[in-house]
Amino acid sequence: MSIVIKDALAILPQKGADVPGRHTIYIMDGKIAGIDEKPAAFPEDAHVIDGTNRLVIPGLINAHTHTYMSMMRNCADDLSFMDWLFNRVNPIEDNLTPEDAYWASLLGQIEMIRSGTTTFNDMQMHIHQTTRAVRESGMRAVICRGLVGSDYDRDDVRLQQALEEMEEGRECSRLTFRLGPHAPYTCSPDYLRMVADVAAEKGLGIHIHLAESVAECENLRRDQGCTPIEYALQAGVFNVPTIAAHCVQATESDIKIMAEHHVSVVTNPASNMKLGNGFAPVPEMMAAGINVCLGTDGAASNNAQNMFREMGFLAMIHKGTHATPQCVGAAEVFRAATINGANALGLNTGAIETGRLADLAILRLDVPSMMPANNPLSALCYSANGSEVDTVIIDGRIVMEGGELKTIDEERVYSEIRSMCGRLGL
Amino acid sequence: MSIVIKDALAILPQKGADVPGRHTIYIMDGKIAGIDEKPAAFPEDAHVIDGTNRLVIPGLINAHTHTYMSMMRNCADDLSFMDWLFNRVNPIEDNLTPEDAYWASLLGQIEMIRSGTTTFNDMQMHIHQTTRAVRESGMRAVICRGLVGSDYDRDDVRLQQALEEMEEGRECSRLTFRLGPHAPYTCSPDYLRMVADVAAEKGLGIHIHLAESVAECENLRRDQGCTPIEYALQAGVFNVPTIAAHCVQATESDIKIMAEHHVSVVTNPASNMKLGNGFAPVPEMMAAGINVCLGTDGAASNNAQNMFREMGFLAMIHKGTHATPQCVGAAEVFRAATINGANALGLNTGAIETGRLADLAILRLDVPSMMPANNPLSALCYSANGSEVDTVIIDGRIVMEGGELKTIDEERVYSEIRSMCGRLGL
Repeated sequence: MSIVIKDALAILPQKGADVPGRHTIYIMDGKIAGIDEKPAAFPEDAHVIDGTNRLVIPGLINAHTHTYMSMMRNCADDLSFMDWLFNRVNPIEDNLTPEDAYWASLLGQIEMIRSGTTTFNDMQMHIHQTTRAVRESGMRAVICRGLVGSDYDRDDVRLQQALEEMEEGRECSRLTFRLGPHAPYTCSPDYLRMVADVAAEKGLGIHIHLAESVAECENLRRDQGCTPIEYALQAGVFNVPTIAAHCVQATESDIKIMAEHHVSVVTNPASNMKLGNGFAPVPEMMAAGINVCLGTDGAASNNAQNMFREMGFLAMIHKGTHATPQCVGAAEVFRAATINGANALGLNTGAIETGRLADLAILRLDVPSMMPANNPLSALCYSANGSEVDTVIIDGRIVMEGGELKTIDEERVYSEIRSMCGRLGL
Repeated sequence: MSIVIKDALAILPQKGADVPGRHTIYIMDGKIAGIDEKPAAFPEDAHVIDGTNRLVIPGLINAHTHTYMSMMRNCADDLSFMDWLFNRVNPIEDNLTPEDAYWASLLGQIEMIRSGTTTFNDMQMHIHQTTRAVRESGMRAVICRGLVGSDYDRDDVRLQQALEEMEEGRECSRLTFRLGPHAPYTCSPDYLRMVADVAAEKGLGIHIHLAESVAECENLRRDQGCTPIEYALQAGVFNVPTIAAHCVQATESDIKIMAEHHVSVVTNPASNMKLGNGFAPVPEMMAAGINVCLGTDGAASNNAQNMFREMGFLAMIHKGTHATPQCVGAAEVFRAATINGANALGLNTGAIETGRLADLAILRLDVPSMMPANNPLSALCYSANGSEVDTVIIDGRIVMEGGELKTIDEERVYSEIRSMCGRLGL
């Protein structure tokens, strides 16, 4: 399918900055084939999207979530972490079938597409289900099966599941995979070293939770004499491209380690506040040159899968904690939600540039939250809520147009979710 | 107009809690005339709203804003407070005409209605303009003309303007008025005492900014030897019903003073973070029994006029600062955004109860952010973004139905805002 977005406001990278301007964008063979200049082979009968009163941005990249938890939204709030995990989340997970995980992932993907997210980085537990949902939804996803264990055992069941899932997912170009050792408190040093070794051998990246809570850090200090980031370093995790979620409790020395080893950090402001974990040292990590990305985390601890909400939190909270209105500005938030995520995930997307994968979100400007459109970068962080997204293109294919989903039967998903919640007692 | 909302999920106050349940709501003569029980005189030809997949909540109350600033959205971000005020906001205000203030207020009101707000408490500077916009929009508003001055002068021009506006606004039942001395740093002790005396004589409440920034507190301590809250107390402000916006820097003793004098506090989390002022001691004020309400503040410092965004911030940030996931829960946020605002403003609204003014917002439940609807109170704070609002009733009149505004010509407003921005160089 070829598409031309005619004369729209679009945010393009120019000399290291993201600059809004009026442009016409040509899409062909899944890629951005030209900007303002029509490619030679561009077909005359391309689908035309009128750019009047529209803003085009790179599709947002949700760099850390667990879509299989989407039906756990609003079922475990205002609780202590222990209550939340052991009395609410775990019992639900114990009763979850693979089919449940599939429908829940679709629910999360509906919310993401509707709010302009085109790629997500997912840690999950029922193999084949998120990948199945992604094939249907048309989204781009990076998948890992969550791994927990204690021994240096290359025959580990979960690792084998992860590898099996990768094998099965080869044929879909929108799917890529990482290894997902869950966290220092669920992976022994031996197990973590085994996963890091396998990742290095197979040329895979790692996706891990690190330094999320004070309790995690205190327990690890007591038992292993190190921080979670030192623990991962010692196990060889940082020998492969690593995406570390949270890092709320990262110390100055941890930040130095991560910067030196080119670890990408995903900050999840809503989840970190909601579970009482606090505020990640995002300004400090950015200053140290760390590639900071943005994620929603799963719906049980957010509870939205809406990156606009998350951009709002990221742009606001550090101004509050640092008593500095210039702290983490709109330009930095935009990069965290787009190109930084693409770089962390090794994907040729996240910016409107010729040659990049055509993953785009088109927003209405004739809505109160975008009016006046004095500064579209600011609007994305400070006044938009995600409902401005009108049309979404992923891999050169329209998955939503004029607010209508093209790939997912929403009513069917909602109906399945309703009956699942009845069965699970949600 | 009589309206019946048939068999919808609705959040009703029951024995001090807000409880979701299925109800049919009868609206007549601007009021909620019955719940589940049809009033005797209820007409057969009432307008029927089907409650299937709908959630009814009291219309939200934005307890502190400046709607005339709505066109300043996204034009002054990521700047120091001094840069923001003196180099961006003030020069724009200097060039603003009364007509500009009218259109800007309508822009803010469009955003508020679309996101379920039915009442706002507005401090403004061009008299007759917000009131004019409110008459047309159908919203409920409490208006004050911002007052600044140095002498005990009852002939003060701005005070006279405020009184003139009140006189002119008498005939509209949706309009009420307060006196609005701007802040301790713009009102001398004599001027503030004069305003407090006039308020007491005329039976008017006061709306004031207090203890917003560290600089305000430090300067006042140096010049007057007291906190902003002590300053207001000494001037007699708290002798009349007072709504104090911000109170970010309120001390333990300030909180005690405000609790003893039944001062209502409006917290404005987005604005306080965005300008680098920090986090108000909301949990502490709530614990002291202060009536804490919620507001967006003006669009120059937020930049949204969307109370859902604000509810999200309020529910999240104090869990982060207090490292406690139970801190400021969804139930408390809901009250801050509804009944607490009504009580502060002296309005018989803010709850779904027979006899209250019929100010209601109806949300879609068949959208991803509300799905599953396990816990509607949580959903309002943790996953909704305001775009779920489908229908809004104010004073028993439908001002939006099925996403369509009934009272404001949106295109006309946007067109006026665009040309105004051109003229103001925004």
